[in-house]
Amino acid sequence: MRTVYRFILLFLLCSQRLALAQNGIVVFQSDFGLKDGAVSAMKGVAMGVSTNLKLFDLTHEIPAFNIWEAAYRLHQTVAYYPKGTVFVSVCDPGVGTNRRSVVLLTKSGHYIVTPDNGTLTLVAEQLGIQEVREIDEALNRLKNSSESYTFHGRDVYAYTAARLASHTITFQQLGATVLKDVVRLPYQKPDYSDGVLRGTIPVLDTQYGNVWTNIPRTMLEKISVKPGEMIQVMIRYKNELVYDKSVRMVNTFGEAPEGDDVAYINSLLNFSVAVNMGNFSEKYKVFSGPDWTVTIRKK
Amino acid sequence: MRTVYRFILLFLLCSQRLALAQNGIVVFQSDFGLKDGAVSAMKGVAMGVSTNLKLFDLTHEIPAFNIWEAAYRLHQTVAYYPKGTVFVSVCDPGVGTNRRSVVLLTKSGHYIVTPDNGTLTLVAEQLGIQEVREIDEALNRLKNSSESYTFHGRDVYAYTAARLASHTITFQQLGATVLKDVVRLPYQKPDYSDGVLRGTIPVLDTQYGNVWTNIPRTMLEKISVKPGEMIQVMIRYKNELVYDKSVRMVNTFGEAPEGDDVAYINSLLNFSVAVNMGNFSEKYKVFSGPDWTVTIRKK
Amino acid sequence: MRTVYRFILLFLLCSQRLALAQNGIVVFQSDFGLKDGAVSAMKGVAMGVSTNLKLFDLTHEIPAFNIWEAAYRLHQTVAYYPKGTVFVSVCDPGVGTNRRSVVLLTKSGHYIVTPDNGTLTLVAEQLGIQEVREIDEALNRLKNSSESYTFHGRDVYAYTAARLASHTITFQQLGATVLKDVVRLPYQKPDYSDGVLRGTIPVLDTQYGNVWTNIPRTMLEKISVKPGEMIQVMIRYKNELVYDKSVRMVNTFGEAPEGDDVAYINSLLNFSVAVNMGNFSEKYKVFSGPDWTVTIRKK
Repeated sequence: MRTVYRFILLFLLCSQRLALAQNGIVVFQSDFGLKDGAVSAMKGVAMGVSTNLKLFDLTHEIPAFNIWEAAYRLHQTVAYYPKGTVFVSVCDPGVGTNRRSVVLLTKSGHYIVTPDNGTLTLVAEQLGIQEVREIDEALNRLKNSSESYTFHGRDVYAYTAARLASHTITFQQLGATVLKDVVRLPYQKPDYSDGVLRGTIPVLDTQYGNVWTNIPRTMLEKISVKPGEMIQVMIRYKNELVYDKSVRMVNTFGEAPEGDDVAYINSLLNFSVAVNMGNFSEKYKVFSGPDWTVTIRKK
Repeated sequence: MRTVYRFILLFLLCSQRLALAQNGIVVFQSDFGLKDGAVSAMKGVAMGVSTNLKLFDLTHEIPAFNIWEAAYRLHQTVAYYPKGTVFVSVCDPGVGTNRRSVVLLTKSGHYIVTPDNGTLTLVAEQLGIQEVREIDEALNRLKNSSESYTFHGRDVYAYTAARLASHTITFQQLGATVLKDVVRLPYQKPDYSDGVLRGTIPVLDTQYGNVWTNIPRTMLEKISVKPGEMIQVMIRYKNELVYDKSVRMVNTFGEAPEGDDVAYINSLLNFSVAVNMGNFSEKYKVFSGPDWTVTIRKK
Repeated sequence: MRTVYRFILLFLLCSQRLALAQNGIVVFQSDFGLKDGAVSAMKGVAMGVSTNLKLFDLTHEIPAFNIWEAAYRLHQTVAYYPKGTVFVSVCDPGVGTNRRSVVLLTKSGHYIVTPDNGTLTLVAEQLGIQEVREIDEALNRLKNSSESYTFHGRDVYAYTAARLASHTITFQQLGATVLKDVVRLPYQKPDYSDGVLRGTIPVLDTQYGNVWTNIPRTMLEKISVKPGEMIQVMIRYKNELVYDKSVRMVNTFGEAPEGDDVAYINSLLNFSVAVNMGNFSEKYKVFSGPDWTVTIRKK
């Protein structure tokens, strides 16, 4: 009988081992779109490594070459996956230059496989750096792919992520070089002085046209705004004033009449503005990126 | 040896138990689009509940706030999944108001997790109501998410669907409140009188621009139309006549010349019209929704 | 104890058997788009056959009725999946006519389930034909679906692919008819004469607007071009000259200034042209299809 128990024990130990590190989940992000076979080829390569992997998508609609948005989508999503998940992000305008290919292991236990071009700026801040290791591409590249120089997403990143997620290689086998930090994009951080909060618009809620800022809910306490109260919101593009209105702070859109501008805390717990049942971005021509500044004060 | 058989038997019984209720499949629908991380975060939460779940998408391109279309897409798809599948539908213009969060168990054995705002209108009619239970959000909400009021899709619906699909909770553990019915949207039903059939255009076949009605094939027998015969089709928007033509009934598009208007039975077994190899909706400016009426009679 | 070993051995043998033929992976391609429930219904049917299948997408954004592009996307992707993968491609303008439904088994061990309308042109050339078998639709059709004539994708192709991938049926059980060849679309093949290479533009890299030709890297050796050297590129639409410029051959985009036209070898190892960090197709109004001709010679 003992052999049976050994067998079961071994099985349980193996399962447990998986629970302690990578969990077999790979999540893909890119600026490839879904119209051609590029994303699917990445998944095919991953399945070629191990058919036990579970493959998901973050988004493949990152605007072409927009590293900032790639960074933001990771920041919005990574923490909601269980620890041990391996992310692949391929927004890589510098493919073929001397930018490094790296894997970030966050303090939260998530892995991100990506060109080190600023894509890791926000997750590194948010989740902390446990270790960053450069991918040795001589060791970690799909067989017979070395003659092609342009599809790192498939031949290096998807392949390496799948091998890491399936325990085919260890984190150490990615390569010998441990880096001190990741490449970081400069951007304006949220700030408080003299009763005024300042921030940027890192991203729009594109489906609804809501405008999300990087000013956290906790910072709003400094100007002690409660739901139902009015806030003065000013939005500038570079130095030009684009929007300047008094807006009601609400808990839920249902509290305001249809068509009203409202301020609210979004699902990332940041200050945001919207037109109730409408599109704020289109109506006021407000968009996202580091050139936009938002200032708010209590009315 | 007996222990071995017991072990195998236990395993088979467990598998069998799964076959009798939820099957580990979760299918997501929303009006979020695929450009940001919202859909992916929902899947991350589900994976955090159980990595054994199988996650699929219905569509995430429901037009923003269009409850009718959300209802229609469920009606078009749910029955094709095996019984025990758990659906999540998040088209929720009333988020934060007093609309209820519910799970419908249909007589066919499918579960649908959704705000009860009319989204269940058509599947309730089509598949029947076995039981509707309100979700007690105090018990069924992702940990540490209570400060955010705006992303029920992730924090309540995806989380609850994953717990239900993985047998982490039973249907009863959703909450104590059993409802008598679901919220139903009013809409014009198919109707026959004096040799004329009437119906609406619940939805377009958007990829091809074909116009689908809610008049079932079985009702066509009342005007005894056979393939190859001509039908008079009139389409009105409110009281305005938009289209009035004699159209051939075909079994397959291949039977008619390219560019001809044709009538046919679509994949849902309803009466439909199309331009062969063209776009009926664009050509004649015919769209969908309860304001559209279609009447047909034998020529 | 022996029974235990027998059990383990049986388990290993079963796994091995799977490794020798179909691997449980099904990959879907269509021109359905993702706005309605059609793609999801196909996956529901597959799950109804076996919940052990792993379902992926190639793309569902094939332009409506564009068989050439369906053929190209298969050519771009199939080989990156492990052998034994079953593909479903539904781009079917002739649905309901006498076009055959077939399954191609390639020499590389991949299966493709599709209407035989030219969709198999490029994979048949690329991967070779092991056997082509017509699907006997009397035997291979979802139950209760025979009254509907228009959704073969769900009722025949997805259903049959799932049954084949899950070993519910063998390749022989698809039907008794073995075909000699697949239907092939005519197209201009790459060609060399008198120092000049000729080819077509089978497809654009739509996300970036790069122009991909069907002239392979190996053929470039005939005009002995090295990275850094200049090439004369002429592009014609029918007989009209649309583009005529001297372009630098690069290994990577990083080698050229932003905004420069460059020539490079794409991820499929074919000759391609692009605007570095820009959109070649939009800038020069160059598109894809058999009416386009590209000629290149060494400068």
